[in-house]
Amino acid sequence: MEMAEATGEAPKRTRSGRPQRREGSKNLGVPYIVRNIPTYDILGEENLERIERVADRILAEVGIEFRDDPVALDHWRRAGAKIEGLRVSFEPGMLKEIVRSAPAQFTQHARNPARSVEIGGRNVVFSPAYGSPFVMDLDKGRRYGTIEDFRNLVKLAQSSPWLHHSGGTICEPCDVPVNKRHLDMVYSHIKYSDRAFMGSITSEERAEDSIEMARILFGADFVDGNCVILGNVNVNSPLVWDGTMTKSLRAYARANQAAVIVPFILGGAMGPVTNAGAIAQSYAETLAGCALTQLERKGAPVIFGNFLSSMSLRSGSPTFGTPEPAIGSMVIGQLARRLGLPLRCAGNFSNSKRPDAQAMQEGVMSMLSAVHCGANFVLHSAGFADGLLAMSYEKFMMDMDFCGALHSYLAGVVVDDNTLAMDAFLEVGPGSHFLGCGHTMRNYQTAFWDSALSDNEPFEKWVEQGETDMALRANRSWKKALAEYEAPPLDAAIDEALNDYVATRKNGMADAWY
Amino acid sequence: MEMAEATGEAPKRTRSGRPQRREGSKNLGVPYIVRNIPTYDILGEENLERIERVADRILAEVGIEFRDDPVALDHWRRAGAKIEGLRVSFEPGMLKEIVRSAPAQFTQHARNPARSVEIGGRNVVFSPAYGSPFVMDLDKGRRYGTIEDFRNLVKLAQSSPWLHHSGGTICEPCDVPVNKRHLDMVYSHIKYSDRAFMGSITSEERAEDSIEMARILFGADFVDGNCVILGNVNVNSPLVWDGTMTKSLRAYARANQAAVIVPFILGGAMGPVTNAGAIAQSYAETLAGCALTQLERKGAPVIFGNFLSSMSLRSGSPTFGTPEPAIGSMVIGQLARRLGLPLRCAGNFSNSKRPDAQAMQEGVMSMLSAVHCGANFVLHSAGFADGLLAMSYEKFMMDMDFCGALHSYLAGVVVDDNTLAMDAFLEVGPGSHFLGCGHTMRNYQTAFWDSALSDNEPFEKWVEQGETDMALRANRSWKKALAEYEAPPLDAAIDEALNDYVATRKNGMADAWY
Repeated sequence: MEMAEATGEAPKRTRSGRPQRREGSKNLGVPYIVRNIPTYDILGEENLERIERVADRILAEVGIEFRDDPVALDHWRRAGAKIEGLRVSFEPGMLKEIVRSAPAQFTQHARNPARSVEIGGRNVVFSPAYGSPFVMDLDKGRRYGTIEDFRNLVKLAQSSPWLHHSGGTICEPCDVPVNKRHLDMVYSHIKYSDRAFMGSITSEERAEDSIEMARILFGADFVDGNCVILGNVNVNSPLVWDGTMTKSLRAYARANQAAVIVPFILGGAMGPVTNAGAIAQSYAETLAGCALTQLERKGAPVIFGNFLSSMSLRSGSPTFGTPEPAIGSMVIGQLARRLGLPLRCAGNFSNSKRPDAQAMQEGVMSMLSAVHCGANFVLHSAGFADGLLAMSYEKFMMDMDFCGALHSYLAGVVVDDNTLAMDAFLEVGPGSHFLGCGHTMRNYQTAFWDSALSDNEPFEKWVEQGETDMALRANRSWKKALAEYEAPPLDAAIDEALNDYVATRKNGMADAWY
Repeated sequence: MEMAEATGEAPKRTRSGRPQRREGSKNLGVPYIVRNIPTYDILGEENLERIERVADRILAEVGIEFRDDPVALDHWRRAGAKIEGLRVSFEPGMLKEIVRSAPAQFTQHARNPARSVEIGGRNVVFSPAYGSPFVMDLDKGRRYGTIEDFRNLVKLAQSSPWLHHSGGTICEPCDVPVNKRHLDMVYSHIKYSDRAFMGSITSEERAEDSIEMARILFGADFVDGNCVILGNVNVNSPLVWDGTMTKSLRAYARANQAAVIVPFILGGAMGPVTNAGAIAQSYAETLAGCALTQLERKGAPVIFGNFLSSMSLRSGSPTFGTPEPAIGSMVIGQLARRLGLPLRCAGNFSNSKRPDAQAMQEGVMSMLSAVHCGANFVLHSAGFADGLLAMSYEKFMMDMDFCGALHSYLAGVVVDDNTLAMDAFLEVGPGSHFLGCGHTMRNYQTAFWDSALSDNEPFEKWVEQGETDMALRANRSWKKALAEYEAPPLDAAIDEALNDYVATRKNGMADAWY
């Protein structure tokens, strides 16, 4: 499953036939990126095998605890794992064999078929940040997220041509009871976006509600045979899988929907302080989760996930967008491809409390690691601030703009007669310019990425225009995008059925606030 | 000359014996980085050959003009090139054969031997931005650079452990006459830094002055046998070499000093609007310049340089830190390694007028391309703002901090028994934490990059501390660094001799202001 070297040929058109670059209307994005550059592989065979062998030893000699989920333990028992109490250990090679039934690539269908995404292979899907309890913007500062913020962020994502996915818990809608908010979140994704989305994982029941709403949208038969919703489940690192997570994981797999399996390892706390060890641990934990999906339903789609992080060793605070997780991601990518599984890895991470230089210094380093390591599904592509505690409206806009730049970056360097431009050299010759030559006229419209948020004016014009910084331009742009937002059409009967489902489910529960 | 795959072993100590990571005192940087990750090669053999063949055709069928330098034309005539007027054309393969005499790697000596740098191979040298007429900071905004600014910036560079080189025209000292400022610039580098530096190229005489001052510092015999100064010469793209540049280039080569050969191609203006063609052109122009150094003095060190850029096709403004030049740099790196020449490519470019999110979004994308493409000498590693029109004090500090992060990034993922941490897994087990375990205690001090400018505090503490953004922290840090700066000791006799040389040369000239 090594990814082929880039062809250097013109990127293939995606199924929709849309070209890779922006044209005219802002909404003409591609449904996902087909990368035309190779992955950045930094380790050789011998070192990859050393990491895999340590993962094998962790799985065999230490094992993983599976808490509060007897069904998971039954699965492992039947599969031949060794079980002592809650501790499950695995013979070397056993889990790799089990995950062979998972698909290397699958389609996640969107309600607008032109927006469906391919996850795996050379495909790259950008999805918003996930899970922040707070939101922030330049006007009102930081505060708890609400369902209105949630809807706003879904609308902003939908308005951008540079994301491919509506995401999941785009922020926590803290004004809705904890046990009901999944219903409002899934409904909002369906109502305000026509892209693919994610459901809840905070309990098995909420996972099943999410999938049930997807059945209302797509039809139960279709859902049984096709992936239409993702659930992002976390390992409780080190080496513990909690029942809440494994039950949700199994709910998605049982419905033939894709779980994303993600350890969150803060080096020095939930894993070793050295990268190679943290990678081995992450690999072991993820592999066990991926295998469990296959024991629940053989052939169910699953995504091999990763979230390496680092720690300020002076204060103990987690740090984000730092160099060690960025370079470690390259190795995770190599290991995931050796397993033949689609990869989720890295994203646009930052610890900054402002949409400032730190936000983008950390964000770009970490986002580039996602595309270099070959991540197929990039959760946290936009908005991640304050160490994932807050979703920043301004950073959301800046990050989506950067996702646009990555469309051009991932198109690579195309080598063909047109791009080599020999005719232009013969026409222009030494000491002249290419501004009006035939080759330029034929190619300029698609030549260069054109950022909507970067200032490229001469200094004097920038002064005339008010000496803005990028944060202020981003602030204006989200307000404009919200004002101009138009909801994608949704079949009225489906909308009604979804509202009925939400109302009925909510009626059956008392509010729970924690 | 392909660069070997990363070993994944612990990085070798550099000659000085200093470790790769910061320890205690801020001044204990390494003299340069020995990369432990491979280069990021994005094109295969066939496409590289196609680009080389177009470069061959440009050189043979269009040719390059060499203006105002009869000696250069004589060199080409003797070497067997075809000459018509000023137009020189070259048989395929001829220039490649000529550059075979240039070293693949060489030492540039610093006056402090512990600061000497190795240029070529797996070595990476970070040098400040070069050539801005303006400077800017948060207090005083943008204004013309002065010799005081020049000295300040040299001092700030010297104070950082994360640069390796003092650079050249760190800003234009516009308060000094144009025909005299090279003397003050070279003197300032020698006086206020003990690192390697660059000399003038704005005329043959100024190049020779720069080299003569290096002879005073190092001794004439040493200089004849060793590289102690670099000169950065630009092609007048497309396909023109001006005499001012070739005469300076020859002055450096004649003295056995290294010229850096750099076309500045703004795609769509000085070259084709498509990357592959711009790369072929850049390759042809640089190759001709590198070959000319060898005709002047066989075996002289030379650096294969590159500066791809893009253009806003709405306004015609140049753009910087955009995706097309970033990904194009990977190809330039591959081509330079096929020639066996040390590479200068990319840097921390931005068009922003503020030390804001745009500055670092563009800067990080482009700086990462420099380290990924295998650049050995990274000019413009720090301070580049406003499309190189201004040197930003705050961005200078932020960029140097990011250079620090790149030390950790380029160390890669080390795979050995210690980093794999099997002992830690056996000690900690599932559900516990690694904070106090033996492995963490042995490794935490060198585990993670620790930025001096990033905020990693919890939100509440960040509020308490004044809600700073990175720009403000950078503003404070350059003031602190200047206040704490201490000049490295310089032999009094050498200092006097340099001052005498400068005074004598200045006395012999009338002020020229353009």
